[in-house]
Parts: sequence; structure tokens; C-alpha cells
Amino acid sequence: MQQSFPMNGGDGPHSYLNNSHFQRQAINVSRTMIEEAIAKKLDVKCFSSNPFRLADLGCSVGPNTFIAMQHIVEAVERKYLAQGLKSEMPEFQVFFNDHVANDFNTLFASLPTERRYFACGVPGSFHGRLFPESSIHFMFSSHALHWLSKVPEELLDKNSPAWNRGRIHYTSGPEKVSHAYAAQFEHDMEIFLSARAKELVVGGMIVLLIPALPNGIPISQSPFGAMFDLLGASLMDMAKEGLISEAEVDSFNLPIHIASPEQMTELVERNECLIIERMEFVDPRSNLFGLINGKECAMFLRASLEGVFAQYFESGIIDQLFDRLSKKIMESSHQLEPVGTLLFVVLRLK
Amino acid sequence: MQQSFPMNGGDGPHSYLNNSHFQRQAINVSRTMIEEAIAKKLDVKCFSSNPFRLADLGCSVGPNTFIAMQHIVEAVERKYLAQGLKSEMPEFQVFFNDHVANDFNTLFASLPTERRYFACGVPGSFHGRLFPESSIHFMFSSHALHWLSKVPEELLDKNSPAWNRGRIHYTSGPEKVSHAYAAQFEHDMEIFLSARAKELVVGGMIVLLIPALPNGIPISQSPFGAMFDLLGASLMDMAKEGLISEAEVDSFNLPIHIASPEQMTELVERNECLIIERMEFVDPRSNLFGLINGKECAMFLRASLEGVFAQYFESGIIDQLFDRLSKKIMESSHQLEPVGTLLFVVLRLK
Repeated sequence: MQQSFPMNGGDGPHSYLNNSHFQRQAINVSRTMIEEAIAKKLDVKCFSSNPFRLADLGCSVGPNTFIAMQHIVEAVERKYLAQGLKSEMPEFQVFFNDHVANDFNTLFASLPTERRYFACGVPGSFHGRLFPESSIHFMFSSHALHWLSKVPEELLDKNSPAWNRGRIHYTSGPEKVSHAYAAQFEHDMEIFLSARAKELVVGGMIVLLIPALPNGIPISQSPFGAMFDLLGASLMDMAKEGLISEAEVDSFNLPIHIASPEQMTELVERNECLIIERMEFVDPRSNLFGLINGKECAMFLRASLEGVFAQYFESGIIDQLFDRLSKKIMESSHQLEPVGTLLFVVLRLK
Repeated sequence: MQQSFPMNGGDGPHSYLNNSHFQRQAINVSRTMIEEAIAKKLDVKCFSSNPFRLADLGCSVGPNTFIAMQHIVEAVERKYLAQGLKSEMPEFQVFFNDHVANDFNTLFASLPTERRYFACGVPGSFHGRLFPESSIHFMFSSHALHWLSKVPEELLDKNSPAWNRGRIHYTSGPEKVSHAYAAQFEHDMEIFLSARAKELVVGGMIVLLIPALPNGIPISQSPFGAMFDLLGASLMDMAKEGLISEAEVDSFNLPIHIASPEQMTELVERNECLIIERMEFVDPRSNLFGLINGKECAMFLRASLEGVFAQYFESGIIDQLFDRLSKKIMESSHQLEPVGTLLFVVLRLK
């Protein structure tokens, strides 16, 4: 059974819509890389002309997805022009995909009125098939593939060496816990890549933006790990004060895995249809983390993670949890220096 | 500016989801007709094999749309088998279309898990383009095309002969009011048919189920007219009791037009790309109206019409309005004898 953890819906103060500047900045920073991939590597001549279909996998509620889709449409249009195919310029159809529980009503209500594409919403997990065979020309996924389809089962078994006592993530945990997370991620990615390979048109392209760490850097030395440790510590503080029980913290685990280029390369190579066209970190000088303070950082994490906590803990603790996190981040900001954290991956069919 | 009047969302006691038995019965009654049209007239051999795309225009929130789409998918599968094309059986992709304000979250949450198609939601008015050119193989629209894209403007002008004093519809009104409604309907249908003709694949089919009246039958002699008159009379009673103002009733008009086969034929003929393959009333012996009592009838109307009233009147009056309607229907049930009320239309490209 897959689990679903949508970003916060609506347009309120804790909504993803109002707390996703970080992801937006990442999309802007990677814009040139996407344009370059389309200009150099997308062979539009091999497509039957009409329409050009693109998909955003794990789109959440906007506005980031609209910005990204517009960039891609414009880059593809330029490619058609550059190839002298002005008369064959296709119409565009964009498929916005996310979990069934995503707030599609908000997504649809905020669609740009001036868009140059036909819009569709596609409800369902991208850890499975979403589209007919050979029907999508360009697939994009940003800040979504680090979500596991579920918490690895071993973590919930008190008698397993992967029982994750006093923590909510594999950061700073025993090796067996990391292994369980990695195995789940590999399983999920295999399904993801196999589904996408079937859905992609020959000559089509997949662009992924994935939170990741350079090979050999342990997560505990990264901003990701620091955040997860601080979240765990905040919960443990609350358990010590009797606001929640320690047993609750023991059996709660964040279904998020941070991959490395090595791991991603191996997973793509296991798939027999796809090859890596490009894989590199988004320029770390873009300093993605540098611009936000402790409170903003906690708000950003809340918009993404509140759903996971709210499914498990009583809703009354959510405000406190993120208030405590905000304070802890401010106390420990030296741990949040930017490192290469966002991996840009271009895939195509062999 | 187009107006949007979605059916009641959610799954509460007044929801469309729980008050659309009538439309469901209509879909079941017309099932054989749809199957016959597909079996006899849909030339699947002329489609490039994969996928087969179908659309429900004005789908609302289910479950009717799921039932209809499943019938159509099964009928198309049988057609492929009957033509000896088992090895070319396509995958199916269904586009569920309705206004942006439709409750797509509820629609997506209630999608059948065992469906044999890939599902998409398409937000936007069908009085305009929704899909890329030549991309849809089968279009369906049930109980939706009688909604006008907006209230005709003349009705809101006190100095116009089409000022509709003391009524909320053209039923029992002056001729100028009927003309304004008919002109709006014709304008809307022209746009609808022209958009669909562009979107339909060569060899594709359009099936419409439209509330309609036989040629020459005035709406005042029909169950539709009776309902609209009773709704109007309920509002006027409330105005007389001072619960609302008469001026409010004067300037409120239901954006619903009931067409005739003659009018529909003329409109399709005006379109240069489409022809009528079949047009007839759904068997009146199916007695669509006969099975519901006054309260059920008021509930059914509320699920469809509450949105229009709620945009205009204060929400406090809605309960009373439909209570009064329910009583008036029971007092006047002799007016609600079934007549041919649902027109079945099959169109295809020339």
C-alpha cells in the first residue's frame, strides 16, 4: 500500500503555494540547464508534429509548476524555430501530476490565464503508470523523487535491527536504518524509471531535479541531515515534556531519501531503456539555502512536511513542533552552509 | 466573460454526488444507444492504434461519469474484438472535463480503483477549446449542454423588452426573453461545435445527451417549464413575504436553455465539419421522472442549481427555497408527467 503525503493545499499562511520560494529559486537557477538540454539534445524532428505533450510529475499546487512548464514550452518553441520548423510548431498539452490527495482545485484555480498550452491534471502516484505508452514528449520532476512511496516496513518492527528508536530519519541512525531507506528508494526508483520509459515517446526527454548529496558525503554533514536531526530533536524535547510519547517518536519516520549521483547512475543503468544524457549538481554558488532565515526555513519545511506529521501526530502539536524547529535552526545556523544539494539529471530513451 | 455554475461538490446530503440518480438512470437508459452507435458507426480501423482518448465534457463529480466512461470503454473494446483487432487493442485515456470551479478533488478521490484507463482532469469551459487538434477519439456530454455560458445581457437591462420581470426563466415569459435565451444558446453551441470539430480525430465520434423538447412543444407545457415556474413562484412568494426583494427576482435568470431537435439540427448544419449520424429522444417509456417524489425532485434540482442561486441570493434563503419548491411540486405533480425530454445525438466529422 502506497502512502500519500501531499504538500499543504489552499493559499493560507502555511500553504505550499506561499512557502515554496526555495523550490522556485531552484527552478529558476536550473532554467539555463533545461534550456540547454532542450536546445542541444531534444530531437524535435523525430516527433510526429502535433501535439507536444509534457508532464510535471509531483507538481504540487503551483506557482512553481507553472513557471517551469512555461520555461519548457518556450524552450521547445525556440528549438522548433532554430530547426527551421516554424510551420510545424505544435500545440502543447501539459499534464500536471500529483497524488490524488493533492489540492487540484487550488492548482486549477491558479492556472495562468495567458498560458500557451492545454492543461490537464493527472491524479496518482508516479510510482506507477500514469500515461498511455509512448505518449509524453517531455517529463519534468522537481523536488519530488526524494519522497519514498512508503516508510520501509522494517523501521516499524521493534525487533528489527532497523527499528529507529528516538529518531525520525536515517540521519545519525544505525546502518540498518540507512539500508532500509536506500532499499526502498531503489525499489521506488526502479518502478518510476520503468513506468517513464514506457510512457516516453521515442526521442523524448526526462529532466529531474532531485535533492541529493555528492558521493561520499554523509547526510549527517548536510543541511538535509541537520534539518531532520533538528526536527527529531524537537519531537524528543516534546516527548520529554510529556506533550507526546517517546513511543510515538520511535515509530514515526520521514519517508524521504537523499540520493547521491553514484546511486542515481546505478539505478538508471539498471533500467534497460534509459540512458543518462547529463547529471550534475546545480551550481552551488546559487546559494539556495543562504537567503532564508530560521523562521523562513521552518515555514518552508512545514509547507512540505506538515502533511506527514499531521497524519501521525495530533494536530495540536504541529504549531509547536515548527516553532521549536525555527528556534533550533536559528541556534545552529552554522550547520546550514550550502553544499551541492540539487542534482540535475537529463535522461532519454536508448 | 463566461460564468461558471458547478454542481454541488463534496459528498454531503446536498451534493451532486448523492443527488444525481436521475442523470445516472438516463445514462443507463441510453447505454444501448451508445453501444449501438459505437458498434455500427465508429470506424476504429482508421485510428492509429494507441492510445484511444475519450472525453466527458461537463462531467461534474461522479459517479455518473465513471459509469458512462466505463460503458464506452467496454463498447470500444468489443468493437476492436469484433473487427478482429485484438492484437491492436489500445490503451485508454479518459479526460474528465468541467469548469475550473468544479470539485475535481472529490472527482479524483472517487475514481474507480479498478478502472481500465488512464485518468486526467481538464479544467475549463467547453464553450472554448480544451484539447489539442485531432487528439480525441470519442467525446461524450450528458446533461451539460443546456447550461448557457452566461445569462443573456438583454435580460439585465430594465429598458429592454427582454427585461424578465417576476420570472427567473423564459418559461411563461414574453417572446423577447425566449429569443434572447435562444440566441445565447445558438452562440454557445456554435462555439462548442466548432471547438469539438477541431479536437476530434478523423473518424471520431461525439455523443450528446441533452435535455430537450419535441419540436413545437412549448416549454411551459413540459416538466422543465413546470419546475422553472415553480422555482420562480417560490422566490416570488418569498419576495412577497419580504424575505428577499422583488428586484432581486427580476434581475435573476437561470442560464438554462431547453432545445428542440429542429434547433439542434440547424446548429449542427451550420457547422461545416460535423454531420448528424443519429438524433432521437431516449425512449420516454423509461419514465425518467416517474420514479421520484416531490422531495427527491427538489433535492435533485438543488444539487444542480444551488450554485447558481447561491452566487446571487444570500445563502440563508437556499434551504427555504428548496423546501417551498418541494411542497409546490407535491401540490402540482400532475404537471410532471414524463414527455420525451432527453435527446440522444451522435455526431461525426464529415
